[in-house]
Amino acid sequence: MNKICETQLNFDSSCFRSDIEQAVDWLARYGSDPAGGITRLLYSSSWQEAQAVLAQRMMASGLKTQFDDCGNLYGRLEGGGLAKEVILTGSHVDTVQNGGKYDGAYGILAGLIALEFLYEHFGTPLRTLEVVSLCEEEGSRFPLTYWGSGNLTGRYSTVNPPDIKDENGVTLQSAMHAAGFGLGAFPSPKRTDITRFIELHIEQGFVLEKERIGIGIVNGIVGQRRYTVHVKGCANHAGTTPMKYRSDALLGACEMIECIEQMSSSRSDPFVSTVGQFHVKPNSSNVIPGEVAFTIDIRDANAGTLQDFSAEFLDSFSRIAARRGLTVDVDEWMNMPPVLMNESMNQTLASICHRRNLSYRSMYSGAGHDAQVIGSVSPTTMLFVPSLGGVSHSPKEYSDAEDLAKGIAVLAEWLYIYGYTDSN
Amino acid sequence: MNKICETQLNFDSSCFRSDIEQAVDWLARYGSDPAGGITRLLYSSSWQEAQAVLAQRMMASGLKTQFDDCGNLYGRLEGGGLAKEVILTGSHVDTVQNGGKYDGAYGILAGLIALEFLYEHFGTPLRTLEVVSLCEEEGSRFPLTYWGSGNLTGRYSTVNPPDIKDENGVTLQSAMHAAGFGLGAFPSPKRTDITRFIELHIEQGFVLEKERIGIGIVNGIVGQRRYTVHVKGCANHAGTTPMKYRSDALLGACEMIECIEQMSSSRSDPFVSTVGQFHVKPNSSNVIPGEVAFTIDIRDANAGTLQDFSAEFLDSFSRIAARRGLTVDVDEWMNMPPVLMNESMNQTLASICHRRNLSYRSMYSGAGHDAQVIGSVSPTTMLFVPSLGGVSHSPKEYSDAEDLAKGIAVLAEWLYIYGYTDSN
Repeated sequence: MNKICETQLNFDSSCFRSDIEQAVDWLARYGSDPAGGITRLLYSSSWQEAQAVLAQRMMASGLKTQFDDCGNLYGRLEGGGLAKEVILTGSHVDTVQNGGKYDGAYGILAGLIALEFLYEHFGTPLRTLEVVSLCEEEGSRFPLTYWGSGNLTGRYSTVNPPDIKDENGVTLQSAMHAAGFGLGAFPSPKRTDITRFIELHIEQGFVLEKERIGIGIVNGIVGQRRYTVHVKGCANHAGTTPMKYRSDALLGACEMIECIEQMSSSRSDPFVSTVGQFHVKPNSSNVIPGEVAFTIDIRDANAGTLQDFSAEFLDSFSRIAARRGLTVDVDEWMNMPPVLMNESMNQTLASICHRRNLSYRSMYSGAGHDAQVIGSVSPTTMLFVPSLGGVSHSPKEYSDAEDLAKGIAVLAEWLYIYGYTDSN
Repeated sequence: MNKICETQLNFDSSCFRSDIEQAVDWLARYGSDPAGGITRLLYSSSWQEAQAVLAQRMMASGLKTQFDDCGNLYGRLEGGGLAKEVILTGSHVDTVQNGGKYDGAYGILAGLIALEFLYEHFGTPLRTLEVVSLCEEEGSRFPLTYWGSGNLTGRYSTVNPPDIKDENGVTLQSAMHAAGFGLGAFPSPKRTDITRFIELHIEQGFVLEKERIGIGIVNGIVGQRRYTVHVKGCANHAGTTPMKYRSDALLGACEMIECIEQMSSSRSDPFVSTVGQFHVKPNSSNVIPGEVAFTIDIRDANAGTLQDFSAEFLDSFSRIAARRGLTVDVDEWMNMPPVLMNESMNQTLASICHRRNLSYRSMYSGAGHDAQVIGSVSPTTMLFVPSLGGVSHSPKEYSDAEDLAKGIAVLAEWLYIYGYTDSN
């Protein structure tokens, strides 16, 4: 970065504070749920309103505003000499049922505020800058996630949408059509001109808060595997069946889970394992459990670690079951590979934080994000800002405006470097 | 036993085989449930029918037949010289919802057949012999068990019944009155003249079947304690919460349960421990469990063992919870002491089995029975016969007629010894 830039970029993050605070509250009006928090499900009326008011604001800010045919909304600041190279920022506009006002919304609004700031202070960029309000990420209305980024990358298509229904029996296709999308009225969603993507998001965990760090630079998004383990023994009377004659499915399951815990203790961050669901049959205080089903969720940045862990627990479970006279079946129902973020883009982010004396750390995202989908086709990264108590997907979700503003300052400077200078 | 008796008692058990087979099927008609098995709940119409036909049969057999005021039904074979000493046999007439045809019924019918046989072959006994069809044991209609034997021993009274309701909101008192009991029309249920009680019952376990033994002589009925353990940690996102920052209630609960299993392995029969119920909150595959509640059921013949076990696990649980940053609360909601059966009566049973070349073993009952209530006031014992696969409280409940007949032969000989001879 040359000296001229340094001087020009000597803005303080506090200039974004009231902007982002107001913008978050403004967008939260669309989908405000009487039962608490925000409910803004894909193609619903509150979703349509939110996209409409975002489009209005983009236009008012001088951005070239455009929907694509799945409902992603773009605001474009056309570049000069290298206009065909598009640098994209943004996040998703949909929420979970009774969600918070920061999840997704922050990434869209941060991108919009950063573009407004850059355009006002530096005019037309060298490369094209765009902000996107992606139509869907959460999978809260239909049993499908990443519908927005999936269309952007060509993983999904509005021409041939999956045959899925919401809980009222409405298909994805008919909901899309009713909202005016998927009918060819807008350009096809697939983009091949995105040269870089950056997504700002609340952490949805409490690591930054606990460690009093302002910015998380995301190294990668962990891979995830999920399993359901079915353990079968023999249900029997708790009083009349001597210990030596029992095949207790619950005792076997507990030993398997302790085995998962021990195996996990020899792995390091970002590896995590969770047994979240546990069901017993017949689940009566005076009957020896005949069946147990429990889930395992494992995540890591390294696909090999997940593979090894999986092989290891399958082997241990078989031995535990055999020793106890039980049967065990393991069903793998999710297997998503890890996605690495772009290292050189992250180095730039780190030097921006360093220059601004902002506390930062690199970290993995343990949750899924649109960045993992777009990252599979374009150089991509993410920035996290702290979430109070790590709470998310809840009306109690909260991030401090000071932290949100710091994120925008880093984003704006990063967009300046890649959008306005010839550094690449 | 003198030589005359031996000769007189040289009957073969096979003489009872068709009698008991027919009697079990006959009584099973009253309460036969279209949904399967037998449903004969206290004071219901099928219960009233069953008691009525049993009363008819008792009368037809020449027994002095009498209800008491809680609905227990007695058939009495009045003694001669020692008529005031009453030797009682029998069991309960009620069933669980969709129960089997042997549980309870066998004990009543065995007693009736034995008395018919003795009266026919030996006439009036020295002491009075009675068979009882106890009105209630299972606790299937009202949240109360041992209503029949509890009234017999004075633990409960029809004058002041517990203020409890069935699932339709009918009180115990109004159900009793509707069936014609509790109104003073019959003698008070409390008995002080019972000098011995013996109950025949199906094992409801599979120990006898597994060990190919025909008769179980019950040493005692185990004491029982039941607990609910509440473990609290902190629910959190399975992806964004590093392992080191977790307070996982499920992992803590599994360690506690493994501790229960290890502690149990150093105890011997009849000690049993069972974790039968297990509930997780929020029970979602991608959320770290914040709360777990599980039950513990421990049983043993020795009250001290139960007390020690309880103190030991409470101590271990506290240590496990503290190490894991969890809280643990243990709620004891059942504490029933063990009841020993009468040793000299059991010696007589053993010598009868020995003389008849019947395979037998002494054993503890891991389930509760009326004998534990009556055993608290009178010398009491129980005989078990094998249950196929240990299945009970199910339409699949089955005991072979050959085994049922052997039990009756032992009972008849035992009643002869105590009822017809001066051995005491």
